[in-house]
Amino acid sequence: MGQTLTEKILDDHLVEGELETGEEIGIEIDQVLTQDTTGTMVWLQFEAMGLDEVQTEIAAQYCDHQTYQFDFKNTDDHRFLRSAAGKYGAYFSRPGNGICHNVHRENFAAPGKTLLGSDSHTPTPGGLGELAIGAGGIDVTVAMGGAPYYIEMPEVVNVRLEGELPEWATAKDVILELLRRLSVKGGVGKILEYTGPGVESLTAPERMTITNMGTELGATSSIFPTDEQTEDYLERLDRGDEYVELQPDDDAEYDDEIVVDLSDLEPLIAQPSMPDKVVPVSEVEGESVEQVIVGSCTNGGYEDILPVAKMLEGREVNKKTEAIVAPGSKQASEMLAREGWVAEMMAAGVNFSEATCGACIGIGHVPASDSVSLRTFNRNFEGRSGIEDDNVYLCSPEVAAAAAIEGEITDPRNLDDVEAPGVELPDEYDGSKTDLITPEEAVDDELVKGPNIGDVPLRDELGSDIAGEVHLKMEDNITTDHIIPATQDILMYRSNIEKLSEFTLSRVDDTFAERAKNADGGVLVAGENYGQGSSREHAAMCPMYLGIEAVLAQSFARIHRANLFNFGIVPLTIDEDTYEDIDQGDEVEIVDDVYEAVTSGQEEFTVRVGDEEYTATLDASERERDILAAGGKLAWTKEQAEGGSGAAPADD
Amino acid sequence: MGQTLTEKILDDHLVEGELETGEEIGIEIDQVLTQDTTGTMVWLQFEAMGLDEVQTEIAAQYCDHQTYQFDFKNTDDHRFLRSAAGKYGAYFSRPGNGICHNVHRENFAAPGKTLLGSDSHTPTPGGLGELAIGAGGIDVTVAMGGAPYYIEMPEVVNVRLEGELPEWATAKDVILELLRRLSVKGGVGKILEYTGPGVESLTAPERMTITNMGTELGATSSIFPTDEQTEDYLERLDRGDEYVELQPDDDAEYDDEIVVDLSDLEPLIAQPSMPDKVVPVSEVEGESVEQVIVGSCTNGGYEDILPVAKMLEGREVNKKTEAIVAPGSKQASEMLAREGWVAEMMAAGVNFSEATCGACIGIGHVPASDSVSLRTFNRNFEGRSGIEDDNVYLCSPEVAAAAAIEGEITDPRNLDDVEAPGVELPDEYDGSKTDLITPEEAVDDELVKGPNIGDVPLRDELGSDIAGEVHLKMEDNITTDHIIPATQDILMYRSNIEKLSEFTLSRVDDTFAERAKNADGGVLVAGENYGQGSSREHAAMCPMYLGIEAVLAQSFARIHRANLFNFGIVPLTIDEDTYEDIDQGDEVEIVDDVYEAVTSGQEEFTVRVGDEEYTATLDASERERDILAAGGKLAWTKEQAEGGSGAAPADD
Repeated sequence: MGQTLTEKILDDHLVEGELETGEEIGIEIDQVLTQDTTGTMVWLQFEAMGLDEVQTEIAAQYCDHQTYQFDFKNTDDHRFLRSAAGKYGAYFSRPGNGICHNVHRENFAAPGKTLLGSDSHTPTPGGLGELAIGAGGIDVTVAMGGAPYYIEMPEVVNVRLEGELPEWATAKDVILELLRRLSVKGGVGKILEYTGPGVESLTAPERMTITNMGTELGATSSIFPTDEQTEDYLERLDRGDEYVELQPDDDAEYDDEIVVDLSDLEPLIAQPSMPDKVVPVSEVEGESVEQVIVGSCTNGGYEDILPVAKMLEGREVNKKTEAIVAPGSKQASEMLAREGWVAEMMAAGVNFSEATCGACIGIGHVPASDSVSLRTFNRNFEGRSGIEDDNVYLCSPEVAAAAAIEGEITDPRNLDDVEAPGVELPDEYDGSKTDLITPEEAVDDELVKGPNIGDVPLRDELGSDIAGEVHLKMEDNITTDHIIPATQDILMYRSNIEKLSEFTLSRVDDTFAERAKNADGGVLVAGENYGQGSSREHAAMCPMYLGIEAVLAQSFARIHRANLFNFGIVPLTIDEDTYEDIDQGDEVEIVDDVYEAVTSGQEEFTVRVGDEEYTATLDASERERDILAAGGKLAWTKEQAEGGSGAAPADD
Repeated sequence: MGQTLTEKILDDHLVEGELETGEEIGIEIDQVLTQDTTGTMVWLQFEAMGLDEVQTEIAAQYCDHQTYQFDFKNTDDHRFLRSAAGKYGAYFSRPGNGICHNVHRENFAAPGKTLLGSDSHTPTPGGLGELAIGAGGIDVTVAMGGAPYYIEMPEVVNVRLEGELPEWATAKDVILELLRRLSVKGGVGKILEYTGPGVESLTAPERMTITNMGTELGATSSIFPTDEQTEDYLERLDRGDEYVELQPDDDAEYDDEIVVDLSDLEPLIAQPSMPDKVVPVSEVEGESVEQVIVGSCTNGGYEDILPVAKMLEGREVNKKTEAIVAPGSKQASEMLAREGWVAEMMAAGVNFSEATCGACIGIGHVPASDSVSLRTFNRNFEGRSGIEDDNVYLCSPEVAAAAAIEGEITDPRNLDDVEAPGVELPDEYDGSKTDLITPEEAVDDELVKGPNIGDVPLRDELGSDIAGEVHLKMEDNITTDHIIPATQDILMYRSNIEKLSEFTLSRVDDTFAERAKNADGGVLVAGENYGQGSSREHAAMCPMYLGIEAVLAQSFARIHRANLFNFGIVPLTIDEDTYEDIDQGDEVEIVDDVYEAVTSGQEEFTVRVGDEEYTATLDASERERDILAAGGKLAWTKEQAEGGSGAAPADD
């Protein structure tokens, strides 16, 4: 039987297990990346494990979320990250050099490699045929130490592209169309593999817009085959020698197939406040727009901003609208500046920002109250922009530029005298690399810790009893932005869990953190897809710190589920009836001896609520059960290193 | 007897009084400016006074402090300011278009005009022969309504410049030399008028660096005569027709004279944490530098950034140093981008920011803990950068660039192979004006108020008794940054006095606000130069809101003193012995009938502390006494408009 492209790469990297859907496999990781929101914990854990040097081919530490450095804690974190990269042998990308995914794709992403990153949009270089997966920080730490990464073998779905994009339809509309069809849960447990005759019509940067935002489908990863487009892009990056041809076998078997005819697509837009609330732009035309932002890892490349610059050249941003362009990398900024496009955008009224994630996670350019903001980003979860009750729409750079000109949502096909800019790649990506400090150029050989950089919190070994109050009952699709908001005033405490935990789930109920901390244990109850969104492990670490022992949910998002194991919180799946029956404030008790049940491989647990008993399921591999029993992955990894098993983390 | 240039302009605008040093005069104001930190109160007060339209030749609302819009309150404020400018007939400069002083000098500043601005660096266009004065917001409001501005006739000091600046010495070093000689109190009650043969060697932008930072001397204003340099600059701005030749009479008499031989100057630097702690750069060479920032209203012009770009071209920012360039205006950014300099700076490793005040007031790019930051700004008051115990040095762009290259403080004369860039003006300032919305282009005709935009607080008429606890005893040189810190987390409440007042004087004692609010009245005691720094009237409004009735200080900074009158707080001067005898926590009582004493012109007040009695002085004009008696300027202005005096604010 032939193999899918995904299977080929996994096979090449397989260390443990077999490529059977649903079975746990261990794979070798070639490259890791981390950023400034998740990176401090990664390195503190690396230090706590007593490791000396990164073991992967490439390890890269980017500073992209907090580049405005609104608080000294951000600046201290950046300095700490530089020192950690220097001490342990990673690349360090200075604040302002760009978003991790953009800088990584420009410098390191390569066909056939595996990449693990502590950021949920890590799958971006799937567009270059790299198998790239987002994970919690500690998973990255352990992989960086040379250990395999364990994951349930996902379903591989064939997304067959036919036809070619018509004028004004873009790569963004491809992924918006998939979100429209599949919803934000549609990709859970799946890798989307793009195939078909439509693939060759898409340049590598367009493919990466699609693989990047596959994350919003809940997908484990997304990947394209490689071809002339891939080689061409790598050559323009002066990395043509890294090209490898990769295609699925002709007789590869997929778990499912979706067909998208590119020729049918038109400009689409995701309405507030979920990336799958997608409609044709024409359906919402005329809505007044106060703010337009172009940028992010989804649409912040040179190739994304150039069309905006072309559309704005000689025109003006509407007087009632603020237009901000924040490139994804300084290389993109530099090239656009050198070619005169930055000046043109400024002349049109654009506020040209440093290269940053910034506004995408609610840091800077927060919309005004009761106003519409149009963004080329990947997420519009309620409140993520930094203001509750926001009205954030997601769209392509072209639709964003049309709104900037008109001051209202506009189908760009209805613009007068504006030519469709199309997609254009530069002859060569020739920006400076001075802000990407190589391990050889390292400034520091010791860690530099500011006063806000705390310790890694640890949980004790799992006990026999779990019982306590349901401190919060939540609905479907609770995001990690709900659990730990990413706004600057909160996220500046990301290296200080005691303080950060005060904000846990404050967006759902601002009395929660105090109630949980004052209680002796307790549990959370949630609906479907609990923990979707960002990969930040603080969303597990903080509930752990507050004493939460278990989460009972109808389903879990993949990365967050792994983070719960990693921080010793028991993730139990319940059915809809059970969910309906349990109320906030109920006392819940797990009847089984929890330690015994977890370690013995028991799947069904009995949950007592008042006089009623329900069944909850723990679907976990042996490895995950061991991690849970040890009280989390850090304790487990140390146990393994110290406990006479002979297995140092690097050999795990 | 001949006139000084200052006297000539004042004479031209005199509405009341005589030009005798120390006498109160009323002058007509041609232009007003305000920005986003002080502007919301300006317009709320304008609205509260019931005025219909601005009466000055030019009124301009800039958005420069909070351009990162880190909270929706900032964005709401900007929208409110746009709506107020539109409704009342002012120019509106969009966030990102630049710092008020830079955009004002590019577009409106003109020889012989008077300018009143609610920002302490308003004197900037003194370098073009405009008489420009910083004031509290309500003074700007009233002037904008057409009323005269009242001020004690300052001393006029002749600053005679001789010689020419040698290579690597800059305009910044001229003002640093004056700060070194005169201290931050040296200009109080004075206007510095520059004369002498050295003047003609300085371009208009260089002159404006000097007049801008005259504020740090405590000067009421600083002014240069006009000449070919002025005309040349206006012509490059395409405003040559606004040129007027203005010179003092040959036999003008000055109150004092200072001589500076430009030829003797060398690169200077102000050490932490006061702008007058000035030494030659050579004395502090070798100090490791983690952050360099070029920008601000002092050194953010095209002419300031160009030398940095030239010095960095083909070189690299040191790996251990972060270099940020934040231009003073989008016009400067656009021109530097068009000429390729922005690309060169990015290639060298510069983080290129939007045009903003930003870091200068502690918003963004806060230094790391225990680190040195070198900035081309005008103030380095402790904590102003956003972190307590900071180490901020102030210097010229050339010295900043040298540190960026070397990673340590470096006398640029010791750089290898780096040519002195000199001063170069562009042939024409040809940036776009689309972000400066004219009254004719106004988007709004009604005010748009977000939920954080509150009411203007009012104090009742002055009572007969002032007695209460000394809630805080402070040392010399307490700044308005101490009274109301300008960091983002605090200043976002600038339109909401109830909330903002919780942070009053928190940098001195974070228990103060609560103690004062819970007490029934009370007073503050301070040393010399109380209230120096920014013009923000919140530094009087918040203590008023907390119930403070009087401030007893050895001396007051000019703008803050006016703000105390404007918000109904009695500013009493005490001598050093009295200051020494009064302790925090003492009960203080003013023995006199305060209302009676204030309104009758009484100068000496008896202050009882325990068994002791002391004398405190109220040095105030009749107008100031009336304002105090009414409970502040807003109440007084309304009284005047309604009270049958027949004097509407516009005729006051």
